[in-house]
Amino acid sequence: MVDIATRVWNHKWKIDPIVRSLIDTDFYKLLMCQSVFRNKRDTQVSFSLINRTKSVRLAELIDEGELREQLDHIRSLSLSRGESTWLRGNMFYGKRSMFRSDFMEWFENLRLPPYHLEKRDGQYELTFEGAWPEVMLWEIPALAVLMELRGRAVLNDMGRFELQVLYARAMTKLWEKVEGLRAIDNLRIADFGTRRRHSFLWQDWCVQAMTEGLGQSFVGTSNCLIAKNRDLEAIGTNAHELPMVYAALAEDDAALARAPYDVLADWHEEHDGNLRIILPDTYGTQGFLDKAPDWLAGWTGIRIDSGDPAKAAEAAIAWWTARGEDPRNKLVIFSDGLDVENIAALHAQFSGRVRVSFGWGTNLTNDFRGLVPDGGLDAFSLVCKAVSAEGRPTVKLSDNPEKAMGPETEIQRYKRVFGVGEQERIEVVV
Amino acid sequence: MVDIATRVWNHKWKIDPIVRSLIDTDFYKLLMCQSVFRNKRDTQVSFSLINRTKSVRLAELIDEGELREQLDHIRSLSLSRGESTWLRGNMFYGKRSMFRSDFMEWFENLRLPPYHLEKRDGQYELTFEGAWPEVMLWEIPALAVLMELRGRAVLNDMGRFELQVLYARAMTKLWEKVEGLRAIDNLRIADFGTRRRHSFLWQDWCVQAMTEGLGQSFVGTSNCLIAKNRDLEAIGTNAHELPMVYAALAEDDAALARAPYDVLADWHEEHDGNLRIILPDTYGTQGFLDKAPDWLAGWTGIRIDSGDPAKAAEAAIAWWTARGEDPRNKLVIFSDGLDVENIAALHAQFSGRVRVSFGWGTNLTNDFRGLVPDGGLDAFSLVCKAVSAEGRPTVKLSDNPEKAMGPETEIQRYKRVFGVGEQERIEVVV
Repeated sequence: MVDIATRVWNHKWKIDPIVRSLIDTDFYKLLMCQSVFRNKRDTQVSFSLINRTKSVRLAELIDEGELREQLDHIRSLSLSRGESTWLRGNMFYGKRSMFRSDFMEWFENLRLPPYHLEKRDGQYELTFEGAWPEVMLWEIPALAVLMELRGRAVLNDMGRFELQVLYARAMTKLWEKVEGLRAIDNLRIADFGTRRRHSFLWQDWCVQAMTEGLGQSFVGTSNCLIAKNRDLEAIGTNAHELPMVYAALAEDDAALARAPYDVLADWHEEHDGNLRIILPDTYGTQGFLDKAPDWLAGWTGIRIDSGDPAKAAEAAIAWWTARGEDPRNKLVIFSDGLDVENIAALHAQFSGRVRVSFGWGTNLTNDFRGLVPDGGLDAFSLVCKAVSAEGRPTVKLSDNPEKAMGPETEIQRYKRVFGVGEQERIEVVV
Repeated sequence: MVDIATRVWNHKWKIDPIVRSLIDTDFYKLLMCQSVFRNKRDTQVSFSLINRTKSVRLAELIDEGELREQLDHIRSLSLSRGESTWLRGNMFYGKRSMFRSDFMEWFENLRLPPYHLEKRDGQYELTFEGAWPEVMLWEIPALAVLMELRGRAVLNDMGRFELQVLYARAMTKLWEKVEGLRAIDNLRIADFGTRRRHSFLWQDWCVQAMTEGLGQSFVGTSNCLIAKNRDLEAIGTNAHELPMVYAALAEDDAALARAPYDVLADWHEEHDGNLRIILPDTYGTQGFLDKAPDWLAGWTGIRIDSGDPAKAAEAAIAWWTARGEDPRNKLVIFSDGLDVENIAALHAQFSGRVRVSFGWGTNLTNDFRGLVPDGGLDAFSLVCKAVSAEGRPTVKLSDNPEKAMGPETEIQRYKRVFGVGEQERIEVVV
């Protein structure tokens, strides 16, 4: 086992790479990438880093040279033979050959496209432009690099044993969470913490601790590299970037209103079973459900990623019931702002009424709160999003106006088209 | 750095030796051994293991085969070339060639003598018989083996990450002690925790954490192997076994009364400076000081190892003052039952009045209290003592009747000879 504290302390390498592999990314990025490669291969998009926690002045904490070194290192990566074999041959969601040969051939030859980096107002402007299937693969490694370099800036000044104790405390903290989760009967929970993890080694440790501590209740990780190395299920379905880009490409309001369903129609053709999971909140959950075509009610489940999760789950249950579906057969995946307490509460409220599952992110892989002074290692709200497609801005509304993004005039247009009224504001921590 | 939890978890070795070297022992054993080699080389002694914590039923916890394997392994050890070079060439207490050539030649050829092992009433009877300089070297490794095997019996059933978290918690606990000690100005403290350590790797970790956390306040370790490996001062002077054996050899009451001073007269010939440390409590501190020859008042200091430490230090200060010595030049070393709280209190009471130093043992290297159920890893009071010399029983009174040992009739005789009356009972934890 890697002694994380010693590894952190030992800065002998010219570069200690933060991202070691193109599959050190979320499984759903690869699923979506294959879908985009099939359906929108030539769509030109722009992704951009957005730090929603302005108080964390990244450009003052992270050396630009080091950042470029890490990003350049990622551009040097290509799929290894073993990784390719695993993607081609492994069973994902009960299915072999999840990734088609044409996609794999393209992926095997892929190098990530160039990035554009500038400092502005104490923050980094980091953007990626080009063909959608290439650019989209920057999201997770870019976030992981920024999160980890910010952490290293704090860890750099610590002594070897101070570091040992820091990680000792973090381990203790995580284990106490594991012990809390153990008390929940029939829990199903996965690691969704790649993007905002403290570090790769730490995520790897957390995943292994969950495996030992939770046994069958721990159903897998979204991180492909860790899933491969640790013989775990790779978990994930799809994300907001699909409807956001489809919506941006819509020629008029009618096409815009259809866009979120067009995405899922494409997905419906490619996937079945537990991969048919609706992510309804991009332009407001209630409106999305109200206007959804009937075939969507036949999908396996829903993922709840913003707003009040209990409210959204109740809305989904009411919707399924109204459409003649039995909610008890449906899967509800909670994936927003989770920690032991609300996992337990949501489980208590919905277990038995639906099949409940949790995708646990930042508070699993990056909870160093209270372990160094001034919150120097606290997770913060960093995202890397599609901001335009074919020159048109993207928009996200979600069920929490604090998470909305896009130009104000476009936000207003989307709200009108999707019938989104007043929304409850919920503080975004991570 | 060794990942202790992983090492503990991984039981691939046929034998994972607990004692890896003949110098994995306390420095004072080697100093005393040289003295005994010079003055009482042929004295036949018997050492015996005594578990003062009867509730810990060692013979039920520890497999006899494993115990024999560890003890046999110790008998296979001999001084390595590097260890010999270090003992011969290193500066100890400011002096080179602390160990004379004739002693080193003898030590280089030494293998530890046979042991005798039996089970009785849920305990192990473990005895060593033979020439004093050989037998005495069993004390520390025998204790370390029993302590660690008892720990392993508990750790064996734990998972890999459960172990990681156990050690994470122990590290956090120790670091909090380090932070507590850091607040004490002009502290001088050494590791005296070899004999009752949780394990070798853990002692090594604790020593390194003290080095980083306390800087100049951490003055060294009693463990020779760790001192050598970590480039630290080896610390220690002498122990009760010298007066106990000298006393047992005394032909009559008058010789008995002289014995504790005869020991120090021999020591006086060999050592000076900070090695001239009185250990006055073997047959009662007050009586020892009252009857001490004047030349002893000229010694550098005193070590307080039983009874109420503040009372003993006050007695020493009064004694020095009465003998015309300035206590402010004298060293008082506290070494019994220490933890952060009483270290701070003793330092506050005596700093400035005398030179204060601490030899911190069990609560440094073996404080796992509260970390596993039922106190399964709590330290307990195990000793390995000279019980007879030339067929005569040894006796120890100390300043706490709970620590007294020897046949009752002999205890009464010693009390009479040394003028020891009622003593305050203090619970012996470790």
